[in-house]
Amino acid sequence: MVMHPVVREEVLLDHHIERLRTVCSLLGDIPCRTYEDIGAETAEVEVLITSWGCPRFHAKVVDRFPRLRLIAHLAGSVKGFIDEEVWRRGIQVTNAVAAQAVPVAEFTLAAILFANKRVFQLRDAYRHHRILRDDSPLWKPWRGRGVEMGNYRKHVGIVGASNVGRKVIELARPFDLTLLVYDPYLTESEALELGAVKAGLAELLSQSDVVTLHAPLLAQTREMIGAGELALMKDGATLINTARGALVDQGALTLELANRRLFALLDTTQPDDLPSDSPLFESDNVILTPHIAGAQGREGERLADLVADELERYRRGDALHHAVRLEHLPRLA
Amino acid sequence: MVMHPVVREEVLLDHHIERLRTVCSLLGDIPCRTYEDIGAETAEVEVLITSWGCPRFHAKVVDRFPRLRLIAHLAGSVKGFIDEEVWRRGIQVTNAVAAQAVPVAEFTLAAILFANKRVFQLRDAYRHHRILRDDSPLWKPWRGRGVEMGNYRKHVGIVGASNVGRKVIELARPFDLTLLVYDPYLTESEALELGAVKAGLAELLSQSDVVTLHAPLLAQTREMIGAGELALMKDGATLINTARGALVDQGALTLELANRRLFALLDTTQPDDLPSDSPLFESDNVILTPHIAGAQGREGERLADLVADELERYRRGDALHHAVRLEHLPRLA
Repeated sequence: MVMHPVVREEVLLDHHIERLRTVCSLLGDIPCRTYEDIGAETAEVEVLITSWGCPRFHAKVVDRFPRLRLIAHLAGSVKGFIDEEVWRRGIQVTNAVAAQAVPVAEFTLAAILFANKRVFQLRDAYRHHRILRDDSPLWKPWRGRGVEMGNYRKHVGIVGASNVGRKVIELARPFDLTLLVYDPYLTESEALELGAVKAGLAELLSQSDVVTLHAPLLAQTREMIGAGELALMKDGATLINTARGALVDQGALTLELANRRLFALLDTTQPDDLPSDSPLFESDNVILTPHIAGAQGREGERLADLVADELERYRRGDALHHAVRLEHLPRLA
Repeated sequence: MVMHPVVREEVLLDHHIERLRTVCSLLGDIPCRTYEDIGAETAEVEVLITSWGCPRFHAKVVDRFPRLRLIAHLAGSVKGFIDEEVWRRGIQVTNAVAAQAVPVAEFTLAAILFANKRVFQLRDAYRHHRILRDDSPLWKPWRGRGVEMGNYRKHVGIVGASNVGRKVIELARPFDLTLLVYDPYLTESEALELGAVKAGLAELLSQSDVVTLHAPLLAQTREMIGAGELALMKDGATLINTARGALVDQGALTLELANRRLFALLDTTQPDDLPSDSPLFESDNVILTPHIAGAQGREGERLADLVADELERYRRGDALHHAVRLEHLPRLA
């Protein structure tokens, strides 16, 4: 095990260690700085469990693990952690991206349901005005024709059929919402099978009451949502970003939100740590959350459970459920 | 049709009227104050569509509708609107409680997911401190052992297997949550069929990370959550009330929340319009929303769709899906 001690303390609990002991002999926690620390036991190691805080597993390191058959990355994406050389030597790689996607999708679902009802805005206004009656100023922006409140027959646009994007579709399917999905790698029938309708980006932006971003951050997706894309969004629509701040042109977004034509719920921005005088902190059409959509607290245990499941499959000789293959890398977050 | 003109304008849309015209001859909108307004046509009326703003349909009125076979109440509970005499004369009654339950259950689901992640608290703290780094004071209350953040393997207690309670269970089932349900009229096997585990109230309160109230307000449920019940709740647990403020002893709740041992998300309080100096407005462990969990904006259309569906069934001679029977009345909200 090569990981930051915090992961060992807070994510890998005693019951996980017990499960791991039933499938392998643990070499004990390897205090993690470099793989050189591991010493002579490397020659015996068949499985490495890596996580946040592990150094990159590069070609020179691979040589020191002649019996290595599996790297199980107890975290999100392996990108940046594992060199292509690993795959070239036939070492299997698995990771907990699927478990990391769950809390992000759950957070997104709640954000969609609350965005369509303006729950954050109404809560803030109620706290401010403290009058509930029909003539309270709190109701003013939300009454009358043309104000389309609520979660009935609204359109939700999912940008990116990633692990998170697919999970959002799965979770949002039981609701009375029309789900549009934009993903250049997804076919129409795959979209329908997921429970969504494939759309072009412009079509999705112009039809959706809520647009939620789940694309990986790649050269071709960086700032994919700029001034032109924001201008396509409907009056009163909400942009949700639980993915990466850099998917959006932050300057264009800040300008567009200052017009108060759109709403936003941003769990991630560019930069992530906004200047404290950012107008986004003050705007009542913008809700900022501090990058918490991903696994928090006990949600980390879901990752450890997934890795223990994978190791049991490996031990039994079954196919891994979360194998990462070399050809996946270019599209991964 | 006997209803407040606002319902006719904002809930019953043109496409609903078109559908209704295919199953019946509409007498047109009856401007609603008393049934006496309706005049001589009453003798012809076979179906009444009632809604918010209609006067009570009492025994004396029934006499004026000799051909009446169905009252379709385009709103929540018929209690308070329709006298028992209606059932005694064999007139069928249906209502849109099931459609009214949907937005409440959706709001509750989002509230559960956000409560377990402290999303409102972290958003408020981020807005206040404006520092995201690991050493930001915003993280202080939420780090370390014993702080059980997140939506993995948490217990959610549903008080009342009402329309809303059942829908909450249905919506929460796909998540990694254990659902406990307390309802004196529900059997263990009915609970399991819904996807929850039957529990006593004390057991539910002491085991749940989130407790959400969905009981009807009756003599025996008034202030069912008092000081003793609140004391049973776990440290850090959240009470959600989207039902009726009077289910809770408001004084006891205010005191318990002042201790900061519990959290609350209250969409309804007792009285609903809190005094503007209520400490609940200021507490960071209390989120107040202004009674918005029920149908808002377009969510009203769901009620009209349900009533149109019922009228089509009635016309075809099929069984109604949402019939209210006399024996249901004592348990209804």
